[in-house]
Amino acid sequence: MFSNYLARPCRYFPAQCTVVKFLHTSPVKCSSVELTQIRYSNLKRGNYTSLADKHVSFFESLLSKTRVLTDKSDVESYNVDWLKTMRGASKVVLKPKSTEEVSEILKYCNDNVLAVCPQGGNTGLVGGSVPVFDEIVISTVLMNEIISINKTSGVLVCQAGCVLENLEAEVTERGLVMPLDLGAKGSCHIGGNISTNAGGIRLLRYGSLHGSVLGVEAVKADGTVVDCLSTLKKDNTGYHLKHLFLGSEGTLGIVTKVAIQCPPKPQAVNVAFLALDSFEKVLATYRLARSCLGEVLSSFEFMDRDSLMVAVTGLKLKSPVPEDTPFSLLIETSGGNSDHDEAKLSLFLEQATNKGFINDGTLATEPSRIKMLWDLREGITQSLTMDGYVYKYDISLPMEHFYDIVSIMKERLKGTSFIRCCGYGHVGDGNLHLNVTAPSFDRDLLDLIEPFVYEWTAKHRGSVSAEHGIGFKKTSVVHFSKSAEALKLMAQIKAIMDPKGILNPYKVLPSDPH
Amino acid sequence: MFSNYLARPCRYFPAQCTVVKFLHTSPVKCSSVELTQIRYSNLKRGNYTSLADKHVSFFESLLSKTRVLTDKSDVESYNVDWLKTMRGASKVVLKPKSTEEVSEILKYCNDNVLAVCPQGGNTGLVGGSVPVFDEIVISTVLMNEIISINKTSGVLVCQAGCVLENLEAEVTERGLVMPLDLGAKGSCHIGGNISTNAGGIRLLRYGSLHGSVLGVEAVKADGTVVDCLSTLKKDNTGYHLKHLFLGSEGTLGIVTKVAIQCPPKPQAVNVAFLALDSFEKVLATYRLARSCLGEVLSSFEFMDRDSLMVAVTGLKLKSPVPEDTPFSLLIETSGGNSDHDEAKLSLFLEQATNKGFINDGTLATEPSRIKMLWDLREGITQSLTMDGYVYKYDISLPMEHFYDIVSIMKERLKGTSFIRCCGYGHVGDGNLHLNVTAPSFDRDLLDLIEPFVYEWTAKHRGSVSAEHGIGFKKTSVVHFSKSAEALKLMAQIKAIMDPKGILNPYKVLPSDPH
Repeated sequence: MFSNYLARPCRYFPAQCTVVKFLHTSPVKCSSVELTQIRYSNLKRGNYTSLADKHVSFFESLLSKTRVLTDKSDVESYNVDWLKTMRGASKVVLKPKSTEEVSEILKYCNDNVLAVCPQGGNTGLVGGSVPVFDEIVISTVLMNEIISINKTSGVLVCQAGCVLENLEAEVTERGLVMPLDLGAKGSCHIGGNISTNAGGIRLLRYGSLHGSVLGVEAVKADGTVVDCLSTLKKDNTGYHLKHLFLGSEGTLGIVTKVAIQCPPKPQAVNVAFLALDSFEKVLATYRLARSCLGEVLSSFEFMDRDSLMVAVTGLKLKSPVPEDTPFSLLIETSGGNSDHDEAKLSLFLEQATNKGFINDGTLATEPSRIKMLWDLREGITQSLTMDGYVYKYDISLPMEHFYDIVSIMKERLKGTSFIRCCGYGHVGDGNLHLNVTAPSFDRDLLDLIEPFVYEWTAKHRGSVSAEHGIGFKKTSVVHFSKSAEALKLMAQIKAIMDPKGILNPYKVLPSDPH
Repeated sequence: MFSNYLARPCRYFPAQCTVVKFLHTSPVKCSSVELTQIRYSNLKRGNYTSLADKHVSFFESLLSKTRVLTDKSDVESYNVDWLKTMRGASKVVLKPKSTEEVSEILKYCNDNVLAVCPQGGNTGLVGGSVPVFDEIVISTVLMNEIISINKTSGVLVCQAGCVLENLEAEVTERGLVMPLDLGAKGSCHIGGNISTNAGGIRLLRYGSLHGSVLGVEAVKADGTVVDCLSTLKKDNTGYHLKHLFLGSEGTLGIVTKVAIQCPPKPQAVNVAFLALDSFEKVLATYRLARSCLGEVLSSFEFMDRDSLMVAVTGLKLKSPVPEDTPFSLLIETSGGNSDHDEAKLSLFLEQATNKGFINDGTLATEPSRIKMLWDLREGITQSLTMDGYVYKYDISLPMEHFYDIVSIMKERLKGTSFIRCCGYGHVGDGNLHLNVTAPSFDRDLLDLIEPFVYEWTAKHRGSVSAEHGIGFKKTSVVHFSKSAEALKLMAQIKAIMDPKGILNPYKVLPSDPH
């Protein structure tokens, strides 16, 4: 995963940019990751049928042998998550090409009570896309057909397994832009993005997928195809069912096709990278940016010193701001006219400087420089994995409390084995990525962080999972952000859509603590 | 209804505008509207308990007598829809002030199998907000408290009965704007907007409510409160349940509170009103506007000659374009800098003129003139009611087929009693309002229009209800836009959330033709 990152094109100007390479890859091998069923030994396997030869024969008759992986070495990478923190024990990976094949597979699995784990690009950060026990992996990797792109309406229709970056390249050629963008773009599948309601760095500008996804086709556990694949911007005919598949992480159905509204491609992109000395000034700068930059403000990303420095080191780059800068901001504008955007940005920077909000910074208008600044922001996640084990928290908080938890946690972990405790994320969306690293997984350290971090978040009316989802890792903490009535309704909906519970078990729905 | 329209402030500049008054009110009296149960005599009343004195006594003990209307004259207007095409026979209207009161009412009604009809501003156009038989009306008119407006995050939290226009005024004072706007703003309630997933004239810019509604609190049929009232932009903790209440028109629960993301208020607004001689040029102008105006394009509204002229006559205004203009467009920009926006608009108009797309037009930058142009567009709906009976169709279509159905319908209705057949709407969203007027309701005329219009729409992969919803009037045609599997899932969800079917019966879910 993330392999495409090494040579991926710049966000908006694919042809013109220089390439920054990671100098390290994660030191952990798939086979050395502890099995999830051992690490979480309290967890019991559900009462599902175990895979037998007759099942494999059926799948081979349906898909042919080439699309049914059973060799241990072939299956291995599908069992382990990108963070190398979970390892399932699945014995088979299926690679359907069409909705009909997904439907046949699920009907068979449902009839035979075989549990399945849908998998896209396997870039999730909460263990949602890998098996926990021996669930059958259904990979969307071969469902990568672009069905249509309408230049007038801006609507893209495609299969679920299309890689986000490839879609971006296709719509860019037609004067459009994908309404979402995230660090894992080179590997993640659009079906996975939709199933996890991915956020990312364009949400500030183009809003959430609940707004930009026009239609979804999904297959329920029993193999029935739910066709909500509208390509219309407006369709008020009955319940808005497609939203059930956005963010339910494959537990209600497997997304097979999607229709997405793509906005016009911006003609001009500018990035400012700014140094600030307090979090109060970060907030003041945000208010000023909203007012000065208005409709051209497309990103407002935040990183503290430790976050920036881990990326600077990992990428072997020079920091664009002094290395002791407590807080940095990456502010992006994108609009239809470069003169207008630059004028707005200049006015903003002038005011921010005059008001004493910012100490230092750099402005980039040329693609290669813009890309380098973005690489620093997007390289944090991967660079952190070099430390060993990463405890990741992806929380939403009211802006006034956005950074408090980082300082509190640092204090709390003093004297333990932790290497780094840092915060970065999407200030404009109230979304903080709090990360603690250690040389290896340490239960004592975990117990010191959790459930404290969730209780603190709940106390401040935040969300315990802003964009990463619940997956496997957060099922014991959903209740911090969902009321009992909402959880009951979730269980009722699960029961009508997947009565045997074969779809991505042990995920999303609340459980006892692992 | 629409009474506030007479004196409502201008969209963005409340203090500065002149007021345009309707010179007519609808000639039809509430008491002369045919009872729905007579007009649709095939329809059978559900097996609900009839209202008895003991029920009224309970409601009076809960709400006090002042908030329980039983006088025929008081109840009358709650029984009749804004279009004066439906009349229920409810004997009681309840006016709760709090979520707890709504919960108590519903628990009692559910226990006693009393059917209810939730009602906001009663501005719906498909009969969703009035009783069909004798359902108890639960009006949100007294649930009009604004709970909070956060200037930094832009999040508004309020009760469901707040009138959209009042919310607009409140957020405007804080430098924000409501992400939706529609002709009925002076009367419609935000809870109704959300329950019907209202579209309107800002959707092109700010997207649908599924994107901008952050949280919803709703009460289920049995009185349990489902608290999904998040104020966070990002919250990926389990199923995204709030979307079930958006567009389900009160059949799954009564929305009691909402949290909405309000964008920054634009600093500059400009409107161009343009004359075009073919629909092909309308589409070409749309493509040009998307490319030239980009992020400042906030509305792209369309009206044909008959639509414009009915408003010109109804409002006693002068047409801003020659009266024989086949097609007119109202194009609005709103952005952060008036010089930039005017430059973009000038370039667009220059190109549109040079390319021969537009024949004539006018540009408005001052508030009173902008308001007058908008009044023409927004006055069409009300002006059409002066003809007598209006057959309304609110359909989504692929852009290339957007106007075909108007010409086809005109041809089809030749020689009948129809007065006018016209089309207007939100081209940018693919949403056409097709309207046929006649002196009074005429079953033969109806049979000539329906199901033809729906079959034609389905054939072109459109939606039979783009923004008005299904309500009572479209339940027999939902299947044209929803697959059998989707309809089955709707029924299953209804069964778990409202097992006795007391919430807004005879609405939304498919029925046999009335």
